[in-house]
Amino acid sequence: MMEASDLFDRITSGEGYFLNIAGPCAVESQDQVSRTAKYLSSIGVPVLRGGAFKPRTSPDTFQGLGEEGLQMLAQAREETGMIIVTEVMDVEKLKLVEKYTDIIQIGSRNCQNFTLLRRVGRSQKPVLLKRGFGNTIDEFVNSARYISLEGNRRILMVERGIRTFETSTRFTLDISAVPVLKERLQYPVIVDPSHPAGVARYVEPLALAGVAAGADGLMVEVHPDPQNALSDKDQQLNFEQYGHLKSKTDQILSAMGKKSMQLERIA
Amino acid sequence: MMEASDLFDRITSGEGYFLNIAGPCAVESQDQVSRTAKYLSSIGVPVLRGGAFKPRTSPDTFQGLGEEGLQMLAQAREETGMIIVTEVMDVEKLKLVEKYTDIIQIGSRNCQNFTLLRRVGRSQKPVLLKRGFGNTIDEFVNSARYISLEGNRRILMVERGIRTFETSTRFTLDISAVPVLKERLQYPVIVDPSHPAGVARYVEPLALAGVAAGADGLMVEVHPDPQNALSDKDQQLNFEQYGHLKSKTDQILSAMGKKSMQLERIA
Amino acid sequence: MMEASDLFDRITSGEGYFLNIAGPCAVESQDQVSRTAKYLSSIGVPVLRGGAFKPRTSPDTFQGLGEEGLQMLAQAREETGMIIVTEVMDVEKLKLVEKYTDIIQIGSRNCQNFTLLRRVGRSQKPVLLKRGFGNTIDEFVNSARYISLEGNRRILMVERGIRTFETSTRFTLDISAVPVLKERLQYPVIVDPSHPAGVARYVEPLALAGVAAGADGLMVEVHPDPQNALSDKDQQLNFEQYGHLKSKTDQILSAMGKKSMQLERIA
Amino acid sequence: MMEASDLFDRITSGEGYFLNIAGPCAVESQDQVSRTAKYLSSIGVPVLRGGAFKPRTSPDTFQGLGEEGLQMLAQAREETGMIIVTEVMDVEKLKLVEKYTDIIQIGSRNCQNFTLLRRVGRSQKPVLLKRGFGNTIDEFVNSARYISLEGNRRILMVERGIRTFETSTRFTLDISAVPVLKERLQYPVIVDPSHPAGVARYVEPLALAGVAAGADGLMVEVHPDPQNALSDKDQQLNFEQYGHLKSKTDQILSAMGKKSMQLERIA
Repeated sequence: MMEASDLFDRITSGEGYFLNIAGPCAVESQDQVSRTAKYLSSIGVPVLRGGAFKPRTSPDTFQGLGEEGLQMLAQAREETGMIIVTEVMDVEKLKLVEKYTDIIQIGSRNCQNFTLLRRVGRSQKPVLLKRGFGNTIDEFVNSARYISLEGNRRILMVERGIRTFETSTRFTLDISAVPVLKERLQYPVIVDPSHPAGVARYVEPLALAGVAAGADGLMVEVHPDPQNALSDKDQQLNFEQYGHLKSKTDQILSAMGKKSMQLERIA
Repeated sequence: MMEASDLFDRITSGEGYFLNIAGPCAVESQDQVSRTAKYLSSIGVPVLRGGAFKPRTSPDTFQGLGEEGLQMLAQAREETGMIIVTEVMDVEKLKLVEKYTDIIQIGSRNCQNFTLLRRVGRSQKPVLLKRGFGNTIDEFVNSARYISLEGNRRILMVERGIRTFETSTRFTLDISAVPVLKERLQYPVIVDPSHPAGVARYVEPLALAGVAAGADGLMVEVHPDPQNALSDKDQQLNFEQYGHLKSKTDQILSAMGKKSMQLERIA
Repeated sequence: MMEASDLFDRITSGEGYFLNIAGPCAVESQDQVSRTAKYLSSIGVPVLRGGAFKPRTSPDTFQGLGEEGLQMLAQAREETGMIIVTEVMDVEKLKLVEKYTDIIQIGSRNCQNFTLLRRVGRSQKPVLLKRGFGNTIDEFVNSARYISLEGNRRILMVERGIRTFETSTRFTLDISAVPVLKERLQYPVIVDPSHPAGVARYVEPLALAGVAAGADGLMVEVHPDPQNALSDKDQQLNFEQYGHLKSKTDQILSAMGKKSMQLERIA
Repeated sequence: MMEASDLFDRITSGEGYFLNIAGPCAVESQDQVSRTAKYLSSIGVPVLRGGAFKPRTSPDTFQGLGEEGLQMLAQAREETGMIIVTEVMDVEKLKLVEKYTDIIQIGSRNCQNFTLLRRVGRSQKPVLLKRGFGNTIDEFVNSARYISLEGNRRILMVERGIRTFETSTRFTLDISAVPVLKERLQYPVIVDPSHPAGVARYVEPLALAGVAAGADGLMVEVHPDPQNALSDKDQQLNFEQYGHLKSKTDQILSAMGKKSMQLERIA
């Protein structure tokens, strides 16, 4: 089975590989994760996302399953050969998360948690760094430097929308961040269309915009039954919606001379 | 020669026609406009833009050639058969602008100039309405209603970037406005990638993002010699850059089952 | 009776005079305006505001009484000796508005209506220029130059809140604009606390913040019966609330070695 | 000597006490801290701020003196009787910081570091929580709940400016946050005018605006020699500037029937 580091290297090879990352906002049960992984792997998606530790605005909402959630992700990896990415919220939990995950995610609210950035900079695993919704691109680039200065240069930069005055969408996807980041850094740039959309029906147009703008990958929230999700239920796609998006993505990639990296290629 | 109203009707026919609008920020000379129109028409672009009255932040900068500029646009139309769009800044100049132009442009700073909106609502010519950079989509939709309530229902809605905290680009293209506007209105949605980009090298990725997000057209600033333009010199594309963008646009449109409307079809 | 130009000159005399402007969002009836003017003049407020032409986001809402509203304002001036300020929305109505008003107001949505700015720059009457809610201070300063370059140098600059991601208030009062504008221009800076507050209970703290930040005046929406106002009903103060605010304002002004300009001084 | 908890209780007593917090951005040397503390205590300021761990956007800039800095603050406390507030950036350093400080500061970039919030919620020391510059007031209130749900209900809420499109100042002080926060929570609201100002000459007007808006305190950056400061040198006040601000503050407080809490009262 291919390692996450090989996957990272392939994305940055200049050969036009595009990275699809998908999965539920939060890990809720083994059945939920396994069904999702089975579906995603069946259409060739190489990376499974899912949160075991959830940074929630309110302390009263679902905070994630913790280690149990990490075990469910690992089980799904066993079943499908997919590569796992999950979020770590603090240094204390890093060892635990590293034990289970292939790629370490730093969430938007931790984009300037410099202690955590330095620590994952000393990890052997690739880091998926999400832009803070209140951070400029300049700050985002500096946050990546906190990681790379410690030695870890496998960083995936994720644009996931910023705070603006517009309220029709949850956040405003800063599509310009794609060319700006690619100009300033050699790291892959991933677009997360789910969080800026806020509702499922806007996810596909934002995702395709990211593809056409030159992103190196997409990270999309997918759930077997979004209506009953424990978090972000409005914005998660069901399997059919994601399948449609994936097929549109592949058509545009093909027009651009690029191609989705396949799970088969990795395994 | 086809009328602007026929062109509008074709865009809204549901047959997948895509509208390319291009031309200089400001009309500077007959030679400049004619050369641009000749180039654009040679690659099938049906609509020529160019400002004769320029709303400039500072009163000390170039304010446009006025009626002389309108005459130059009309001359370029004679030479190429292109359809002309130019901005009107106030009710007093509307009759004059209407005399020369095919499509009336309302600029970003006049998006809530309700007197002007009402007046162009009584015009026989289609209106290209740009979103105010400080306006929500809700306000933008309401501005279109000021026009349509007067009877004119040929409105092109242009997303051209909003004000945010990000300073790497001149404005932040709100790519989400494309699906949101298409959901709320039956009017075509055009993306202007030039003003949010602010610099030429970001125009193409933003333009292609607009295409993939489902926009019905693009409006791009093109100048024979951007370095010596009297306004917006950093963001205007030269002919070669625009030709490259146009060809990429057509590839993505084709992958989406759509096609650029051709000048030939109109003439 | 003192002229508006004398009032302007007194504010800019450096003698610490502070300008209170108050009155309803929109003129609704002679009784409404006269009662408000009577109350305001009884506590020494020298300037009465009231809109006869209202720039409303939606075409379906109350648009103002037009010339009839202007006549009601003039009648209130007759009754009280107050100075009148009212908004003009376009060049076509300027002569009409000039006939009735003492100070010409340019609203937030017209802050970059350059044709209108130039035209009021040739008026003999002082201009109250509101900052566009999407405009930077730099643009606001440039808009004032459009006026002053035409000869009219009696300009009152009004900070009234900008668009931000915060939704607890209607707009975000940019209190920093007070010192920044005073540093860049010699014109008086007025704070409008009503529009950023959006609700009556936040108006007083924002107003007092403006006073302490060094503003030269306040412009506050006051209505005899806010609950039944035809526009902005949530944010208008009733007489008692405004009386309380005025008295707090005077206490802080006194601590700062300044004083409210009195209607008596003017008449 | 009074404890920080007594000071907190006095601020919330409803008797009109106002809290002045001042000191350098970063602790740079014993001489710098001691001179500042000596000056501040001489004019009655009860709380000394100073950063030993600095969250800096770029990894290349001065990151603070660490424990040595904490010792310098403790030494200044010995010399003056002032109460100390300093920032903690992560859970790992919390025990260390708690050992030296009286009040624990959570910086703007950690406003949604939920792990850290929960942990200081179990501390016996009051927490000074700064609003994230990309966070809504709603989120800020939720962050305070992460602390209070763990038992610690001595929280000072600090408004320190948000990200907007305006670039004349470093951040836009959201002065409306003062009344909004006081309406939603029973905790004291402190205004930090230094970070939004970005330059020393705007600090005083913003500070006084905060006082007049009803804030319960001010937190101001003061340095013996701002030109040679290792961080934030443009915005720190020298002693003379701060003395002027303090005296203006006291005049406005007096007009409002409030008074600065004195160091004498505490010792």
